[in-house]
Amino acid sequence: MPVVHQTQEVRSLLAPARAAGKQIGLVLTMGALHEGHLSLVRAAKLECDYVVATIFVNPTQFDADDDLERYPRNTTADCAQLEQLGVDLIFAPATQEVYPDGFTTTIDPPAVAARLEGKHRPGHFRGVATVVLKFLHMAPADIAYFGNKDYQQTLVVQHMVRDLNLPIQIRCCPTVRDPDGLALSSRNQILSTSQRTQAQVISHSLNHAQQLVSSGERDAKAIKNAMQKILSTHGISRIDYIAIADSKTLEEVAQVEDATIVLIAAYIGQTRLIDNQLLTLC
Amino acid sequence: MPVVHQTQEVRSLLAPARAAGKQIGLVLTMGALHEGHLSLVRAAKLECDYVVATIFVNPTQFDADDDLERYPRNTTADCAQLEQLGVDLIFAPATQEVYPDGFTTTIDPPAVAARLEGKHRPGHFRGVATVVLKFLHMAPADIAYFGNKDYQQTLVVQHMVRDLNLPIQIRCCPTVRDPDGLALSSRNQILSTSQRTQAQVISHSLNHAQQLVSSGERDAKAIKNAMQKILSTHGISRIDYIAIADSKTLEEVAQVEDATIVLIAAYIGQTRLIDNQLLTLC
Repeated sequence: MPVVHQTQEVRSLLAPARAAGKQIGLVLTMGALHEGHLSLVRAAKLECDYVVATIFVNPTQFDADDDLERYPRNTTADCAQLEQLGVDLIFAPATQEVYPDGFTTTIDPPAVAARLEGKHRPGHFRGVATVVLKFLHMAPADIAYFGNKDYQQTLVVQHMVRDLNLPIQIRCCPTVRDPDGLALSSRNQILSTSQRTQAQVISHSLNHAQQLVSSGERDAKAIKNAMQKILSTHGISRIDYIAIADSKTLEEVAQVEDATIVLIAAYIGQTRLIDNQLLTLC
Repeated sequence: MPVVHQTQEVRSLLAPARAAGKQIGLVLTMGALHEGHLSLVRAAKLECDYVVATIFVNPTQFDADDDLERYPRNTTADCAQLEQLGVDLIFAPATQEVYPDGFTTTIDPPAVAARLEGKHRPGHFRGVATVVLKFLHMAPADIAYFGNKDYQQTLVVQHMVRDLNLPIQIRCCPTVRDPDGLALSSRNQILSTSQRTQAQVISHSLNHAQQLVSSGERDAKAIKNAMQKILSTHGISRIDYIAIADSKTLEEVAQVEDATIVLIAAYIGQTRLIDNQLLTLC
């Protein structure tokens, strides 16, 4: 399995697959792979004839330098895992290849980027949208796979692809969780043992929101208050947001209805984690 | 020759040409075609196996509503001219096809967009970059042809294509001029007879700049003053800019050197015209 670092190499290796009419799948990652990423690769392998995975820790989507520095990296292990799953090509460019001197064009992301993560991480989605568009051009594919854990990010990409007429399909794959409910994230690696225990409360609070809805509660404020209480009881007090929103626009709602989603961003120590759950009414 | 209005139709018609490995050329126009546009089509026909021309008056690149309303339109004659040149496909989408409800993603154009036209027409290059990127996605081609008359626009597109890794080549084709020197522009149609006579002074002033350089003048200020004098002598007083600049960055220079360009934007009545000339030192 080739591991290449230059855009020109990816294009050359993809050209015969394209010419042969093969369906090409693309999984974009920042490395430090976990089962969440691997589930995207498996989905791509099931549906496509040729699968490209990329590894690139994108500096422009980090709003704090220390977060970028602390972000885990493990390219050798990543490549071994991808090879085992039968990935056909790995593209792992250097920063200079993605952002050469003189680079100045960026994407002003779609409206849905302004809410939640966009409010708390200024510039984050500009960085995400720009790097995703660049990779969709560098490694042209038919289908790209994103995870539901980063729900708003997937929406931003879907809206960008629609607005800019990109000839690619975007798939949103289910969140993969540890048995105790914690959504897999590369950032989980940074947690201490006690923080790791504490972190599971995030998904428990989402489950509690669903339980409240299942027992008839519709008032968003009441649900958010209950979630906050659970979190603070377990020592999680630094919360960027708990939002109950329309799942298409991420506009916050006062009442839970069909297609309502609950989203959360909270800190465990210095580590910021996000998670979400679509609420079902019955 | 098919004339289609939906993105899906263009993609379907292009697919067999792509699959057959044909080289596809793309000429983007706002219609009201003149020999400048046709020269782009001829260049595409010479180099490519399959040529697509688009006709779309893009509302987002007009900074004044009356300019958009006054912009000439003549789609029937445009299609006849394109057919005669052997264009293989015309794509003429409606505004709603290009900007459907909910459209919100735009391109923050490269640094070179901030100067000259960018300063005098706020939002213009955001509109241009966004619509060009959309069309490059809607009608994927190998080579796209732009005119040197809109020099800064071509630079903006080239830098965007480089920055966003678009898999397409951009060609910049020479400005086509009437025998008296006036650069062809769809806006020339709006000029009255006396305005048309006056308009030729714009290119004469550029020629004069070159003559000064050829006779040893290097001082940008002196050259600009001489041009302004010629223009005002002929009643052209509403000038957005006369700029002598580095031809790659459009940064203004004090001294003419290699790869220096002179650019002008001036009004003839209500009609704003632009032109430029690369200065040669000998």
